[in-house]
Amino acid sequence: MAVGSGSLPTLHPVAGVRLGTVSAGIKTPGRKDLVLLELAQGAHCAAVFTRNAFCAAPVTVAREHLQRCQAQPRYLLVNTGNANAGTGERGVAAARDTAAAVAAVAGVEPDQVLPFSTGVIGEPLPVHAIQQAVPAAFAALTADGWAQAAAGIMTTDTRPKAHSLRFTVADREYTLTGMAKGAGMIRPNMATMLAYLATDMAVAPDLLQRILAAAVESSFNRITVDGDTSTNDACVLAATGLAGNPLVIDPDSPQCIALRDALEQLCLVLAQGLVRDGEGASKFVTVQVNGGNSEQECLDVAFTIAHSPLVKTALFASDPNWGRLLAAIGRAPLERLQVDRVSVYLNEVLIAAGGCRADSYTEEQGVAAMAPEEITIRIELDRGASTATVWTTDFSYDYVRINAEYRS
Amino acid sequence: MAVGSGSLPTLHPVAGVRLGTVSAGIKTPGRKDLVLLELAQGAHCAAVFTRNAFCAAPVTVAREHLQRCQAQPRYLLVNTGNANAGTGERGVAAARDTAAAVAAVAGVEPDQVLPFSTGVIGEPLPVHAIQQAVPAAFAALTADGWAQAAAGIMTTDTRPKAHSLRFTVADREYTLTGMAKGAGMIRPNMATMLAYLATDMAVAPDLLQRILAAAVESSFNRITVDGDTSTNDACVLAATGLAGNPLVIDPDSPQCIALRDALEQLCLVLAQGLVRDGEGASKFVTVQVNGGNSEQECLDVAFTIAHSPLVKTALFASDPNWGRLLAAIGRAPLERLQVDRVSVYLNEVLIAAGGCRADSYTEEQGVAAMAPEEITIRIELDRGASTATVWTTDFSYDYVRINAEYRS
Repeated sequence: MAVGSGSLPTLHPVAGVRLGTVSAGIKTPGRKDLVLLELAQGAHCAAVFTRNAFCAAPVTVAREHLQRCQAQPRYLLVNTGNANAGTGERGVAAARDTAAAVAAVAGVEPDQVLPFSTGVIGEPLPVHAIQQAVPAAFAALTADGWAQAAAGIMTTDTRPKAHSLRFTVADREYTLTGMAKGAGMIRPNMATMLAYLATDMAVAPDLLQRILAAAVESSFNRITVDGDTSTNDACVLAATGLAGNPLVIDPDSPQCIALRDALEQLCLVLAQGLVRDGEGASKFVTVQVNGGNSEQECLDVAFTIAHSPLVKTALFASDPNWGRLLAAIGRAPLERLQVDRVSVYLNEVLIAAGGCRADSYTEEQGVAAMAPEEITIRIELDRGASTATVWTTDFSYDYVRINAEYRS
Repeated sequence: MAVGSGSLPTLHPVAGVRLGTVSAGIKTPGRKDLVLLELAQGAHCAAVFTRNAFCAAPVTVAREHLQRCQAQPRYLLVNTGNANAGTGERGVAAARDTAAAVAAVAGVEPDQVLPFSTGVIGEPLPVHAIQQAVPAAFAALTADGWAQAAAGIMTTDTRPKAHSLRFTVADREYTLTGMAKGAGMIRPNMATMLAYLATDMAVAPDLLQRILAAAVESSFNRITVDGDTSTNDACVLAATGLAGNPLVIDPDSPQCIALRDALEQLCLVLAQGLVRDGEGASKFVTVQVNGGNSEQECLDVAFTIAHSPLVKTALFASDPNWGRLLAAIGRAPLERLQVDRVSVYLNEVLIAAGGCRADSYTEEQGVAAMAPEEITIRIELDRGASTATVWTTDFSYDYVRINAEYRS
């Protein structure tokens, strides 16, 4: 199951970026499970990684290599089918060995290769199979490889997630293209989420990192499927500089503002794409909390609702169960919540106010509001001017089936 | 589904306590859905209520009456089928009206009657039906009514939960008997949980409150089914004083120590009974975390595991998925967790150590450890001397079914 259309838009190539997707036979024979992403000399990367204390071996190695190559990696190597997580020192050595194989073929330093893995936890990475497939991945490199690569990094995803934008500043056209994977273990602070984004704009490294962190905060860190956080999350943004613009160093320049806006849009499309393809999802739910004293308390209420199994099973049943919404709001960690000021809307229907069902509300309105695949739950706290929005899914039989059967 | 035996032990009457269970036709015709609990003159009560900001109308009224009658209520009136929650001012008036009906029959003040409700949220309480059934409830009062009452307060519970202990101090025998209901919306800080306990010991009110709060903390506040907290939780302990002992005022007296121990045991049996009967439960899971710097951080790790949908679906599948356990531990809110010191046991089998699968571990061991209905997950953090234990269940198809179909 998945919510809404899954067709990919046109994915514009990014000058200086080529992608090759091949089969290394990691888990499923014949499955295209290995993606090589090549960056032109002079490109540099910003990156955000998982905050899970048990980070996977490739995260350890990618972080280290990124630092050693001064954020100028030439290759990213991504495999699916095996997360190389919970594999200890041997896993770290395995990640290094696959990076070294890429470096040997390309004639670059191993530190210029960043490894990424997603899939089953705790199995040894099949290093030899990956190494053997590396030459084929080089042979497959193409600037038009985004769609194939987006499919190549999938695990329990039912469809690839990718998006692309073009924008013009001062008569120069720029491109921003990206892809992401992830369907379960999705929650704030990333997810079993891998995302690779690239632009041809020339941007100063510290500025690139800042705008990436901000875009991730308002997109990938605002989605949740099941409240779990993966050991392997990574989001990388490459800037190749091949658009030919003077290096952008001013955060208030039109170029930086345009890139920031495009990046926020791209990340939001990809993040919402992850939710729409969430494990067992039959609903796409926007939880918007307004009128809080701070963004944090709005997020606390929104995530308490978005994580509540009782709310999520009611969403699955298309049941306008406003009592469960009130109960979830009431247990959010807010100081002195005045429940009689809280209003709850399903889409634009006021369903609860003053701590009880709204006088104007009818069950028919609630049933009608819950029927569509896409639903907005809006909470008005009426105690301040802050606001926050998160996106989530329902909790279905299929979520249980997928996670009882799949050894992640 | 439920885990383990559900047969009730002998429930000893408590001198000064009578219970009557009748049908008021609140939701299901003929269902015994109304329980009246009578306390002898001179009894007094300790109580703990929900911390949900949206507390239900009966909680508001019970708290207020308890204070006004100086913790000496004569009657507790409990209905199932309707929670009288999310009902605003009309709900408060409805709760008062049912208490008044009991007071009128008994010839006591309305403040001496505490109302409690559980069931569907947001529907108006059928006050008239309850009032009409009150005389029959008085007629049904009997000291042997515990088992019937335990069945009468059930909602989605599949079986009644009650327990009883007798203990002797200084040649005097005391009785402690109690019952509880609750199967979903269970999480720390109570649950949709109602519990009524009584002893014939004479105990000073402040001491009674202290030992009740401590017993609740180590039992009902250590269980979780789905992470949700109800609007209606209440746990009441009555002390009738009819054992004839001199009033217990010293917390270190043998009587107080014996009551405290018995109360902890009773609450633990009832709390674990709620988990065993958790919605859709097919496993009873003990999560024990040792070696923390504080009890709080042990609880943080234990509840992160116990709330993880990925861990819970793996438990449902009897899948020894230690990778999901490591991932859950890694995202618990601990400062500077050294993952290479963490060990994970399933029952007595070491499955993970040093951040990866233990060298000695075999998949056969894991499968064997996961097979029984009762499983202990033990985490050794190896960074301190604190410890904590919580109890939970798995996440099954039936959990989704029950909560998608039931309008709570």
